[in-house]
Parts: sequence; C-alpha cells; structure tokens
Amino acid sequence: MLVPEPELRTFTQNIFLAMGCSEAHAVLATDVLLKSDLRGIDSHGVARLSGYIRLWEKQRINATPDIKVIYETATTATVDGDAGLGLVVAPFAMQIAINKARTYGSGWVSVRNSNHFGIAGYHALMAVEQDMIGFAMTNASPLVAPTFANERLLGTNPMCYAFPAGQYPPVIVDMATSAAANGKLEIAQRSGKQVPEGWIQDGQGNFTTDPHALKSGGSLLPLGSDREHGSHKGFGLSATVDILSGVLSGANYGPWVPPFVSFLEPPANPPGKGIGHFLGAMRVDGFRPAAEFKADLDNWIQRFKSASTIDPTQKVIIPGEPELEAEQDRMQNGIPLVDAVAKDLYELAIKLGIKPLER
Amino acid sequence: MLVPEPELRTFTQNIFLAMGCSEAHAVLATDVLLKSDLRGIDSHGVARLSGYIRLWEKQRINATPDIKVIYETATTATVDGDAGLGLVVAPFAMQIAINKARTYGSGWVSVRNSNHFGIAGYHALMAVEQDMIGFAMTNASPLVAPTFANERLLGTNPMCYAFPAGQYPPVIVDMATSAAANGKLEIAQRSGKQVPEGWIQDGQGNFTTDPHALKSGGSLLPLGSDREHGSHKGFGLSATVDILSGVLSGANYGPWVPPFVSFLEPPANPPGKGIGHFLGAMRVDGFRPAAEFKADLDNWIQRFKSASTIDPTQKVIIPGEPELEAEQDRMQNGIPLVDAVAKDLYELAIKLGIKPLER
Repeated sequence: MLVPEPELRTFTQNIFLAMGCSEAHAVLATDVLLKSDLRGIDSHGVARLSGYIRLWEKQRINATPDIKVIYETATTATVDGDAGLGLVVAPFAMQIAINKARTYGSGWVSVRNSNHFGIAGYHALMAVEQDMIGFAMTNASPLVAPTFANERLLGTNPMCYAFPAGQYPPVIVDMATSAAANGKLEIAQRSGKQVPEGWIQDGQGNFTTDPHALKSGGSLLPLGSDREHGSHKGFGLSATVDILSGVLSGANYGPWVPPFVSFLEPPANPPGKGIGHFLGAMRVDGFRPAAEFKADLDNWIQRFKSASTIDPTQKVIIPGEPELEAEQDRMQNGIPLVDAVAKDLYELAIKLGIKPLER
Repeated sequence: MLVPEPELRTFTQNIFLAMGCSEAHAVLATDVLLKSDLRGIDSHGVARLSGYIRLWEKQRINATPDIKVIYETATTATVDGDAGLGLVVAPFAMQIAINKARTYGSGWVSVRNSNHFGIAGYHALMAVEQDMIGFAMTNASPLVAPTFANERLLGTNPMCYAFPAGQYPPVIVDMATSAAANGKLEIAQRSGKQVPEGWIQDGQGNFTTDPHALKSGGSLLPLGSDREHGSHKGFGLSATVDILSGVLSGANYGPWVPPFVSFLEPPANPPGKGIGHFLGAMRVDGFRPAAEFKADLDNWIQRFKSASTIDPTQKVIIPGEPELEAEQDRMQNGIPLVDAVAKDLYELAIKLGIKPLER
C-alpha cells in the first residue's frame, strides 16, 4: 500500500488529536513520525502509532503534558517532559538548546520523564537548519547485553551528530549503538529469515542466527559484536548515551528504562522518571565563519564520494545520503506501508472513530 | 625492563627540555605521556618519544609554540596550536573549555595546527577533576578505509567521554573508532602473530589476518568491521571526529592529515593546518545537583558490575576500570618497557646528551 504523504499526515494528526493532543502537539508529533517514514526508517514512523496509543491507554503517555525546564545555567538545562510523547518533548528541549546556542555559542539539554522520541535525526536537523551542529541521543528499553553479560541492560541507544554542508546536503550520522537496530531484527522476524552471526546472542551468550532468540533470554549485541571486534566500544558508546540521557537528567537508565511495549509493566522501584534524552546545538560560527566550514565540509564530502572503492559500482555512502534519497522519492511517490502496518492503522482508525486511510 | 615512575618522569622531562621545550611544557608533556604508560596504553606513551623528536628534527613540531585562541564566543573557541606538541596544545584548549564551563555551564574548543595529543582520556579527565563531564577527540593520519572503500581516508580517530562518579572511579569511555587500535596491530607485527578477521583488509578489500597488510595497500577497518555488522556506524563515528576536530577548526582532515611518522612527507596542498582536536566540558551541576548525579552513576556502575555474565568469573568491565588498575599497579611497581622501546630511549638519550635510564 502506497500512501501519499499529505494523506498520511492528515491521518496521523487525527490520531494524535483523538488521543487528546493539542493541535500544535498533533502537528509536531506527526511531523516527527512522518520524517521517519519519509526517510525510509519504517520502524520508527507510523508503524509505532498503535504502540503510542496503547501506552496512552495505560496512562503511561500523557497527551497534555506540562513540559518545563526544571534546572538550568546559561548553556545547560534539564527538562521534565511530564510523561509526554517524546515526539513533542524532544523538539521542545532542542529548541531550548538552539536558543541558548544562539546567545552563548552552544546549548545542551538533558531530558527526563519522556517517552520514545522517534528518529534522533529529526531533532539534530532542527539545529542544522540554524547553521548549527546538532546532537541528539536517547536511551531506550533494555535489549542489549554489555560485553561479557548474558542479560539485557541497555537499549539500542542511538546517537546522532548532524552537520550543515554548503552545496551538499547535511552530513547526518544517526545510528543505534548496537550491531543491528531492533527494526532490522523485526524485519527478519516478520519475514522468517535468519540474521547474520554477530547481531544477537542466545540466553547462554552464544551467537545465534535465530531472530526470535530475544524471546528466550537472548540479547542484541553492542556494535562490534564480540570483544575481539570491539563490542566493548559499542558498550561504551551505549553507556555514554545512557549516562547523558538517563543519569544526567534524572530519568531511568540501564535495566530500569520502561519498555515501549504496553504489555510489559515498567520495572518496580525505578531510580528515575520515564526515559531520557540528550540534545545539543553548537553554532558553527562559534568556531569559524560558517561559509569556511561549509566549503571545507563540501570538500570532505566530495573527497569521500570520489574514494576508490572495492566494487567500482558501489561508491562510499555519505552518512545521511540514503535517507535523503528516500525522502525525495517518498515525498513524490508516496509512503509504502506493509500489510501489517496498514491493517494496524485501519483498526486504530476504527477504534478512535477516525477516517481510515483510503485503500 | 621495569622503570620506577619517578625515574621515567625525570628522563622524559629531560628529553622534552633537550628539544627546547619550556620547563612548564616539558612537565606537562611528560605528565600526558606518562599517564598513558601508567594506564597500560603502551602505544601512546614514551614509546612515541623518538617519533616526536624526529618530527621536531624535521621542523614539523614547534618546541616553543605561541598557542592562542583565534576565534570565540562565550562557550566556544578555536585554538591555533602553532604546530606545537599536541601534548601541550590539547591541555591548553581543555583548560579554556573548563573555564567557559565554569562560567556558562559548558565550553567547547576546536583545535587546529596541532600534533598527536597522547591519550584522549588525559584531557577528558581534566574536566572530571572539576566535577564536569569531559569530551576529547582527535583526528589522526589516514589508516582506516570507509565502508566500501579500498583506500585509507580516516585515522583511528579516538573519542573519549568521561564522567565523575561518587564512591567509584570515573567512567571513562576512551576508544579508537576503528575495529582495532593501531597499537594492537603493531603488537601483532612485532610478535609475528596473525590478527583476527575483521580488523584489516588487503588492498583489494578482502579481510586478511596478515598484520603487515597495510604496507601493501591494506587498511584498518572501522568499528563494526563490515557493512553487515555495522562498519558504516564506525565510519560515521570516525567522520564525526574528523569533522569536529579537523573541518570545524580549520585543521587538515581525511586523507590530508599529516602522518605521525617522519619518513612520510605530509600531503601536498593541504586544506588546513596540522591535525585537529575537539575538547569539551559540561558542568554536572548545570543539569542537576552533582551529588544526585554521582549517586545515580554509582548505582549504574554497581548494577553493571553485578550483571549476570556468560562466564561467571568474567564480570562486566566498567569503561576506565582496567586502566585505573594498571595505573595503581604501575605507580607502585614501575612501568614495563619492551626491549625495542628501552633501546630506542637509550639511543635517544645518547643523541640528546641526556642521562639514560638505569638498567
């Protein structure tokens, strides 16, 4: 099913309105979600709508949050998201970071008491549009085992760094700190395929290619896969995201991060509130004239794009390039929804009394 | 050969003094280098002394640099290292970041026209000692091929994040963004051993276990090793380090970063000056009271240390823990030098008219 972007946008806004979100929040949350669908990261877009609704039904998402700054200096702040959608809490926090950066050169905001914030890239790009370097990260419910462990203590904890270029599109490094994102595992589960060795381990800590191994005590592995190939580095990056997002803000961290799925209860006696994010912005012209930076970044991009490659037909991919190509394609040709998601959205529409997507 | 720390410190200071460094610079450069030897990162300590001397002899290192801020806002700055030792340029820049953080909550300094800065952890720890979160990264001469490429365009570009804890030592994530650090490759080369698949590729882009493959067109691989296991993420992280350190500061970047070894000439027509670093500091109490943060970080550390592990005798290692254990051991028992390094230092002493280390 291929849905034109404007139709999916209206539909998604109606869902958020039915949830009780304000008009402004519904528009913003939709913009974040659709950015993911447009950019080809299907796991983080409207495929998650019914999940948000279920969390709202269980009163774990607050549709009318009072988001506020609870602690700050000139260039740092902590935001309490009041259990709101991360889709609106994170842009609120990023806007504060951008405002601080405009005045002081940089701004950094740690967020507690939030929920899933969509793709990190959306938030980092808010800074890039202001000629700033954008940082965005979030912790997430535990699926990943640290090196040597056989229990899940960390989320796939993505980090994103985004840089404005000149004639080229921005460089956007937006990545899970696990060897494979959970979305890729879900695709393998749905299609009944095995996954490569090095993505997951079973409950005993052995590599397995069974994408369902997480249901029987298995774990995703950190980037690097095993100690010999640097999984302690993936663990270290994931720990960094967890500490900046969770420990620094007073959110939950490690195994206490509440699950995204509504059928699992949050852990008892959590040390913090909700999940945590960390967002930052630095003015490029806080370091050198923006035009000079962009000219050099263009030169960087050009050099990497023209690198000698193993297969001459497969050039080096600049981070952010494939997502931009997907965005251009899908804006024009519509957003593909797999059957399971289309069915999910239809049932959601019926339940909430919204006009379903046209088939 | 096991050298007591004070003796190696005096010896190293004398080398830097013989190079023409000021007393203060000789003391500081020695402190950075010895921190590496003490912490067990033998590849980045006194083993590099003769390399620094050779670069100084070729006038690529300036022993009496006029290090200065050339651009700044309240919380950002660019420093020109005047071709000085990175060992003194980076602490100068980090001190500026710390000063800005003290006043405004955070401080960020990009550095151009510098040289190898030792271990990133030294600089990040300067912030931790002030109850701040420390960031340190540097680009380096090209040894790593981006995903899909068969040429070396990136350094092992380390990044370091360091966090002050309460009753536990700081959490210090200090890692090359390649699958294996170059130091590990050098150890394999010296000992005549093969390296694991996934560390390096040959000139045609095939995995190889030959540690000498870099001499015949091979490359180190980004963290993740291959596309299927996330090497595009290691490439993205390395790109982030290169852009923040090189492109943002006006240093060289990518394949133009000058080589550490003196027998290779720097590339012609470089786009920038020297190599680049990026350093940052954020006050913990810019986000929440430091005591609260530290109590939660202690709880985080405790939970991860007590994780269920695959092998019950191999617990989860908290980032920074093994280096601290090495430091405690070597402060007490001395610093081991392999024969090649001991010989190197002896010859250096004779050449510069310094009293050699006692055998």
